[in-house]
Amino acid sequence: MRILVVNPNTTAAMTASIGACAARVTTAEVVAVNPAMGPASIESHYDEALAVPGLLTEIERGERDGAQGTVIACFGDPGLDAAREIAVGPVVGIAEAAMHVATLLGRTFGIVTTLSRTIGTAQDLVERYGFGARCVAIRACDIAVLDLDVPGSPARAVVTERCRQVVEEDGADSVVLGCAGMADFCDEIAEAIGVPVIDGVAAGVKLVEALVALGLTTSRRDEYAPPPVKAYSGALEGFTRRKPLAPVTVR
Amino acid sequence: MRILVVNPNTTAAMTASIGACAARVTTAEVVAVNPAMGPASIESHYDEALAVPGLLTEIERGERDGAQGTVIACFGDPGLDAAREIAVGPVVGIAEAAMHVATLLGRTFGIVTTLSRTIGTAQDLVERYGFGARCVAIRACDIAVLDLDVPGSPARAVVTERCRQVVEEDGADSVVLGCAGMADFCDEIAEAIGVPVIDGVAAGVKLVEALVALGLTTSRRDEYAPPPVKAYSGALEGFTRRKPLAPVTVR
Amino acid sequence: MRILVVNPNTTAAMTASIGACAARVTTAEVVAVNPAMGPASIESHYDEALAVPGLLTEIERGERDGAQGTVIACFGDPGLDAAREIAVGPVVGIAEAAMHVATLLGRTFGIVTTLSRTIGTAQDLVERYGFGARCVAIRACDIAVLDLDVPGSPARAVVTERCRQVVEEDGADSVVLGCAGMADFCDEIAEAIGVPVIDGVAAGVKLVEALVALGLTTSRRDEYAPPPVKAYSGALEGFTRRKPLAPVTVR
Amino acid sequence: MRILVVNPNTTAAMTASIGACAARVTTAEVVAVNPAMGPASIESHYDEALAVPGLLTEIERGERDGAQGTVIACFGDPGLDAAREIAVGPVVGIAEAAMHVATLLGRTFGIVTTLSRTIGTAQDLVERYGFGARCVAIRACDIAVLDLDVPGSPARAVVTERCRQVVEEDGADSVVLGCAGMADFCDEIAEAIGVPVIDGVAAGVKLVEALVALGLTTSRRDEYAPPPVKAYSGALEGFTRRKPLAPVTVR
Amino acid sequence: MRILVVNPNTTAAMTASIGACAARVTTAEVVAVNPAMGPASIESHYDEALAVPGLLTEIERGERDGAQGTVIACFGDPGLDAAREIAVGPVVGIAEAAMHVATLLGRTFGIVTTLSRTIGTAQDLVERYGFGARCVAIRACDIAVLDLDVPGSPARAVVTERCRQVVEEDGADSVVLGCAGMADFCDEIAEAIGVPVIDGVAAGVKLVEALVALGLTTSRRDEYAPPPVKAYSGALEGFTRRKPLAPVTVR
Amino acid sequence: MRILVVNPNTTAAMTASIGACAARVTTAEVVAVNPAMGPASIESHYDEALAVPGLLTEIERGERDGAQGTVIACFGDPGLDAAREIAVGPVVGIAEAAMHVATLLGRTFGIVTTLSRTIGTAQDLVERYGFGARCVAIRACDIAVLDLDVPGSPARAVVTERCRQVVEEDGADSVVLGCAGMADFCDEIAEAIGVPVIDGVAAGVKLVEALVALGLTTSRRDEYAPPPVKAYSGALEGFTRRKPLAPVTVR
Repeated sequence: MRILVVNPNTTAAMTASIGACAARVTTAEVVAVNPAMGPASIESHYDEALAVPGLLTEIERGERDGAQGTVIACFGDPGLDAAREIAVGPVVGIAEAAMHVATLLGRTFGIVTTLSRTIGTAQDLVERYGFGARCVAIRACDIAVLDLDVPGSPARAVVTERCRQVVEEDGADSVVLGCAGMADFCDEIAEAIGVPVIDGVAAGVKLVEALVALGLTTSRRDEYAPPPVKAYSGALEGFTRRKPLAPVTVR
Repeated sequence: MRILVVNPNTTAAMTASIGACAARVTTAEVVAVNPAMGPASIESHYDEALAVPGLLTEIERGERDGAQGTVIACFGDPGLDAAREIAVGPVVGIAEAAMHVATLLGRTFGIVTTLSRTIGTAQDLVERYGFGARCVAIRACDIAVLDLDVPGSPARAVVTERCRQVVEEDGADSVVLGCAGMADFCDEIAEAIGVPVIDGVAAGVKLVEALVALGLTTSRRDEYAPPPVKAYSGALEGFTRRKPLAPVTVR
Repeated sequence: MRILVVNPNTTAAMTASIGACAARVTTAEVVAVNPAMGPASIESHYDEALAVPGLLTEIERGERDGAQGTVIACFGDPGLDAAREIAVGPVVGIAEAAMHVATLLGRTFGIVTTLSRTIGTAQDLVERYGFGARCVAIRACDIAVLDLDVPGSPARAVVTERCRQVVEEDGADSVVLGCAGMADFCDEIAEAIGVPVIDGVAAGVKLVEALVALGLTTSRRDEYAPPPVKAYSGALEGFTRRKPLAPVTVR
Repeated sequence: MRILVVNPNTTAAMTASIGACAARVTTAEVVAVNPAMGPASIESHYDEALAVPGLLTEIERGERDGAQGTVIACFGDPGLDAAREIAVGPVVGIAEAAMHVATLLGRTFGIVTTLSRTIGTAQDLVERYGFGARCVAIRACDIAVLDLDVPGSPARAVVTERCRQVVEEDGADSVVLGCAGMADFCDEIAEAIGVPVIDGVAAGVKLVEALVALGLTTSRRDEYAPPPVKAYSGALEGFTRRKPLAPVTVR
Repeated sequence: MRILVVNPNTTAAMTASIGACAARVTTAEVVAVNPAMGPASIESHYDEALAVPGLLTEIERGERDGAQGTVIACFGDPGLDAAREIAVGPVVGIAEAAMHVATLLGRTFGIVTTLSRTIGTAQDLVERYGFGARCVAIRACDIAVLDLDVPGSPARAVVTERCRQVVEEDGADSVVLGCAGMADFCDEIAEAIGVPVIDGVAAGVKLVEALVALGLTTSRRDEYAPPPVKAYSGALEGFTRRKPLAPVTVR
Repeated sequence: MRILVVNPNTTAAMTASIGACAARVTTAEVVAVNPAMGPASIESHYDEALAVPGLLTEIERGERDGAQGTVIACFGDPGLDAAREIAVGPVVGIAEAAMHVATLLGRTFGIVTTLSRTIGTAQDLVERYGFGARCVAIRACDIAVLDLDVPGSPARAVVTERCRQVVEEDGADSVVLGCAGMADFCDEIAEAIGVPVIDGVAAGVKLVEALVALGLTTSRRDEYAPPPVKAYSGALEGFTRRKPLAPVTVR
């Protein structure tokens, strides 16, 4: 089985780290990539919107190269709906994956994210996935995404402290790490705070692996059928899609 | 007062029609534009995602040219959050505007949209804006966006019939037209079905006009502050933002 | 355009102040009135219930005198449903108006009200209008309505401090002033706290102006059709309504 | 024990019938009254608003005459909040009582009301009391309140048929009668349709009786404390309240 | 009238105390019992699950011996759905009863429970009964059920202090006691904190008494019809039910 | 890896069929068992309550024999909370698993269950897991659990037809099979109706396998910590738990 893991920002070092975390939890082949175009990190609605074209390009290429399922490795789950329309295999976002897993481990969970300005997006996803009654807190670290793994920085200590607050002050049964760049910290934090800590990259890989094994992919009924074919102009002309030669196999 | 109305698809004829509808309800100067890049119409999550870069470009240009407020004239309200981060003036989406107005006119409303595959997006917006208890139905016409104004087509009759069903079968007090391409039909349908019919383009222009008159714009606190400055690569390098020279004036 | 602004309590000084705030934001003619019967201020469910008969009388009189739309200028939005049944033009409450406007300016808002006993009513309105997920706090000042503008009082400072708490402690993107008697403070507080502050009187006038310009009024379908004609007795005999001579024009 | 049952409209025949239904289910003394002022029946928001002053007058008089608890016998539960502020004993509305009882008898219930224009009010009450997930249907009979007991009319048959639809088509486990004027039909309909049918007058009397027996009344903390004393003017001057001579006994 | 009150744990001293509290509020005959099998107290999901077989046995026996209605006297309302399927008369849980009563006395209530690990179950019940918007806090005392009435223990003082916090810090209008073992403290705490305090045992007895007086019992439509007859094996063979000899009388 | 799959009813043929379905989707060792005590099938709240003691016994035994994770293979997810308290490894119910998987494949899903009296339980689980906005229909087949696999019966055709209705009439993107006894039908129905069909047994096995691979199990914080040790009496004396000899390893 080949699983595509797309880091939607353009920072290759982060892609490598995400790929390593993904590979650690599966026997499937993991292909970790990032787009050539777009923002170096995703920390605003603006960044997120502009990460999507490159992400979609990578998913199309990845499936052409044999990927059977895809993980979107940014905690905002950018472009998830569009990705499901164009991908043949299943697509899962890491926020989605981590939250689903968290709800199987207790009544409540909390999220620890990077900048406070991203809390709103995390809240939107919590509601979208149905977990408004389960998520008891979203706390920010006020650390930029690309500062998470600067050697010698206090990032790991700060993230650990926020996780502890989510458990002890907010009453969470488990903690979801709110950035793909935190994947590395997962085991160490769990050890420190004594409750399950969930990294969405690992969770996403396992969920995609499960869907592929079950022979399941996105429903092609109506909303997530392949997008209508039409003209694209200007700098985005390359996104014009051709009519499928053969009928799409449903299911 | 100058109000920017952005049609986020690339079809100029539709932009002209939207601009005319906008101008009819205000004494402000209306500037109606569309991007040079992106899809010819927006009928999927894929189209919507790829319409956003061009939309953001137009909003930046429009404000540089003196616009004091912006209407996003596509019923999916694409890019609304990103637009609020980068625009100095207020930004309103036409789905948002139409739904807000509808709730001032009765207990319930219904939406008539184009293709059934867009119903999910409309439902997401209803929830986002808080009107899940007010929206009693979303019905599709199964007419593509660019077929709405083909001369001699049955589009107008079909849309009118769906509006009537929303009132008589679903019990809506008013009807929201779910596509900027339907703006032209508004008065005629209201006449035919005997309840208020709301076109989001007109509603959006009046709400933006009101916000500008009240001296109000997007809160710059945290989530909607200008996005962090960072590197953009490849085909999207042009979206790199510079540090603001002067401090942003709050409110 | 003539817009009626009804202060539903009997305190003329407050009516004058409300009228001045209303006139400042519109080129329409503003007619500000208050009933001759009822409570001097509205600070309980009892006051609110007993303010409604006089309010309805003023709306009927105001429309007879040419008003095309009506603002109910008390933050409990008293009598709004009944007013919509009997008024020909659109009717908007100031709590409703302020909350709608606040949601166009950010993700969240907070409300600052007078006495803590009115928090429940504000909470009911938040839910009614669909903004339960947007309103992050309702804080009271413990200042009686008629004490808000006593010269030399600390009212303005206390209200400003509550607004600041709603932003800094509760995380609101904007603040809604929860009493028509605070309209005067709006600009000064916004200046002080650096986020949008919304006065419902100004917001209500602009929304009614927009509805009238759009040719929209309350849907006459079923619930908000004119009330059935019937006998009224005793002290309220004057509220008996006559059968409409001509059929009601829908929309 | 003396229980006050207030019919908030001015129709004495309906008061008599309500009083008889109330007396049938309790050994307490039932005092059934109606106001001298206000509408002959309540079928609109306008009627409801104008029924409240008379209702409040009757509750004050009733408690002065020894009533220990009060039932508001109109399915819109008009004036309930204001009544709780001024009454010393507990106050329950018949919609509230009937819905609470219905939820003890199964998973779901439905409501059968008079005119379709009152469905919105019933829906508001369902939400207010927390039963949105339990109430599966509200159906109207299109019979005016005062036509319910016209001898020889088809009212009883129509109400029975609506109740049957609520069970067989909407899947309700029980049926709540949505008008005090239907109290008489209760047993006969239950017999006919084979599921519990709940009359709010009877349910309200039993709940008030239970609260009095338990020594419980409205909490005097903040929102439902006695209303602030203030000036009332004009035709409503009689509603001016005096300062309580002795401190209010809490609980 | 004979009312069965089942304490679902096996501690006879607690049953006696519950029976005394129940008898104090009614003129009906109260029969208080507990099962011979199961846990000595209920403080976990495990305890609750294993209390149900004994509870069901007692309800069957109690009705055979003439009980017309049943109260389940444990704040988790264990086995309530199963009890409603097999009992002929109405069945009410004490959490259910206390919460319903609390909502008739103000806008909000809080709950004070024993161990913090039971807060989740209380939260589930709050949601099930529809009172998520009314319950503002659930606080635990960290006192085990059987330690509540140890002479000389600080239990009563601790429970009183938690009740006070629920009112003063969380803003509750009333307090619900979250354990049948606290029934004895009810009046004293109410006296101390000045708002209504509700004991579910007393509330449950009054609600069951009301339902019996109204001639109402569980709807037999579908979900709560008597369970299908089938084979039971092993240690639970005694729970095999026989086909009803006579048809069940509906209502 | 060894995964325990517990069929909570006592019918061995059904256990064998469930085990075969489970083994088909995993390379882990599957141990499928059923209790010796309890009901032959689960079709009522009564059956469900009485299936739990035997289920808990099997989970304890299964973990003692080396199981690292557990699937509860009945669509009501009976005893899930109690199982999480006592099991060392993760526990997942098949309703829970199937619904989680369904939400990864589209916007909406529907459920097809056996008897209509079980719809309420399915609805409760939908709400508990957070998927109230995603589940568009629950339809019953009116086929008893043990009649599902009677050779020559129309069960498979009826279930397929209900699934088709859930897609075509209710608009579901995928269908969840609402009984472990339907696991066998899964592929055939998916073929027939052209959208994903999810069997909870297969989904549950993959989710438990994923949790074990990720090193995750139930949070031991508070609610799901091992239950307090206490006396059990009578026929259930065997459920008395001993104090853990070694401290529980958290996570």
